[in-house]
Amino acid sequence: MRAAVLHAPGETPVVEAFADPEAAQDRPVARLLAAGLNPVDLAIAGGNMPFRRVTFPAVAGYEGVGETDDGRRWYVAGPATPFGTLAELMPVPVAEALPVPEGVDPGLAVSLGVAGMAAWLALEYRAHLAPGETVLVLGAGGTVGQIAVQAALALGAGRVVGAARGARSLERIRSLDAHAVAHLREDAEASVRELRDAAPDGYDVILDLLWGEPVTHAIEAAGRGTRLIQVGNSAGPTASLPAPNFRNKLVTIIGHTNFLTPLEARRGAYQHLMEHAAAGRIRLGFEQVPLTDAARAWERLREGHTGKLVIVP
Amino acid sequence: MRAAVLHAPGETPVVEAFADPEAAQDRPVARLLAAGLNPVDLAIAGGNMPFRRVTFPAVAGYEGVGETDDGRRWYVAGPATPFGTLAELMPVPVAEALPVPEGVDPGLAVSLGVAGMAAWLALEYRAHLAPGETVLVLGAGGTVGQIAVQAALALGAGRVVGAARGARSLERIRSLDAHAVAHLREDAEASVRELRDAAPDGYDVILDLLWGEPVTHAIEAAGRGTRLIQVGNSAGPTASLPAPNFRNKLVTIIGHTNFLTPLEARRGAYQHLMEHAAAGRIRLGFEQVPLTDAARAWERLREGHTGKLVIVP
Repeated sequence: MRAAVLHAPGETPVVEAFADPEAAQDRPVARLLAAGLNPVDLAIAGGNMPFRRVTFPAVAGYEGVGETDDGRRWYVAGPATPFGTLAELMPVPVAEALPVPEGVDPGLAVSLGVAGMAAWLALEYRAHLAPGETVLVLGAGGTVGQIAVQAALALGAGRVVGAARGARSLERIRSLDAHAVAHLREDAEASVRELRDAAPDGYDVILDLLWGEPVTHAIEAAGRGTRLIQVGNSAGPTASLPAPNFRNKLVTIIGHTNFLTPLEARRGAYQHLMEHAAAGRIRLGFEQVPLTDAARAWERLREGHTGKLVIVP
Repeated sequence: MRAAVLHAPGETPVVEAFADPEAAQDRPVARLLAAGLNPVDLAIAGGNMPFRRVTFPAVAGYEGVGETDDGRRWYVAGPATPFGTLAELMPVPVAEALPVPEGVDPGLAVSLGVAGMAAWLALEYRAHLAPGETVLVLGAGGTVGQIAVQAALALGAGRVVGAARGARSLERIRSLDAHAVAHLREDAEASVRELRDAAPDGYDVILDLLWGEPVTHAIEAAGRGTRLIQVGNSAGPTASLPAPNFRNKLVTIIGHTNFLTPLEARRGAYQHLMEHAAAGRIRLGFEQVPLTDAARAWERLREGHTGKLVIVP
């Protein structure tokens, strides 16, 4: 088969021939329909993700959607190394793979994997979002953020505010039926005012994909008892947090990562995401890149490309 | 009556004559047995605590233990202004006052008010400490910290570690039957090593009274799913927190303040504290200061005195 093959830690994969995976009773082989290309792939290739260690050569790619010979479609995360998802064929560990319904485009289905589950699990499993609550998505213009805005609406949030730094992101958030947007700026006072004006009664839940400066502004604008779910830090790994500001409002800061979340919780989240996607309630723009161009797409991601990249055979 | 009277925001009170409080059906008058002198008193006098606004002149003091004519003893927090607890007499709002049993010294009973409830509520009500769990008290040498070490033991913690910066504090923590102590230092690596060595299996709960640098060291040493309860920030109001360090371990940071905790939770906490105090399981050293010297004690507190100060008539 053709595959994007990693030869050394941190290097860009090379698209070349690689041995086909062998089918087994509990691990049939699927033809790839779509694979996600995510920052986590670079981190795995660099040896920076303890939950997935590869020995070289190995096929790149952590998540993919494929079809087995019986016509069933599966979402697979982390197929047994040396196999990966940036390949024409991938093994499907049936016990852990998640079914993908017919009505969902494979590109969307794979985009709702790592990114979709981060959004859904943060809101539902970690924040216990209740119907009618007010949600702020901090960094709503990115992939996880766009899904989170739609997931919050699907979960019955009473008011959903999307906050972002760029004008194009704000435009994108508006198109997702968010109730309001907040423009994050360098000027702390202006940011806090935007966040407050967007939800005068305060936020019950903040899904934070940014950290850095914006999270301190969001905590300023938080209300009593706000649950802040920390999911990403694209504005910087470190934030300066004044303790009295969140302690005296009983704010809770809850770390979330999919990778330590039990399979059953992930399975449930993915099933809900598929239902909403099939019903058209969760949409996402993504760019399809043929497998032959995977190396170039990998470089673009490394250089800071932020839109969703989906690899197709 | 004699009382420590505040005349202007931020000023030291003057011990002088003040009108007696008038008894009412639901608000008898108690003779003071012991009053706490706490940092919160200075904050209230400075106009910095939204939950308690005073108009001048007013009696200083937020918490006290007194005895009514029927021989019953009460812990009172925040008697209606212009009255306070640094006075020979104080009104007792029966609906909110908490009974103090005969067997507990009034000085200890008042020390277990704001400080005791902060420790107990953080561990029991906010962290949901379960029997057998491992607890780190960050800043265990101070008043809340010493109570927290004993409260954690009383709540059935399997291992209790007290961390502090000074040698005298470490000595004090050892005398409280903590399983281990950790010496916090400027050197981050040494601090993290001390914290790890003191609990090789990690911490389930961290009660943080320090924030600042030490909290980042504690998060380094935290385990998967640690609940960190933020109660005080005597090492500094701001901490630089790297998000991946706590997110990827599913650490939760939970702000706590007594002042937004429902009365029934505070009532339950205080009752448990009184039971453990009566049984000798919770002890605390404190310095008794006569009411006539309250102004000097106030100045010492402002200058940074850290030991527990109890005002007696």
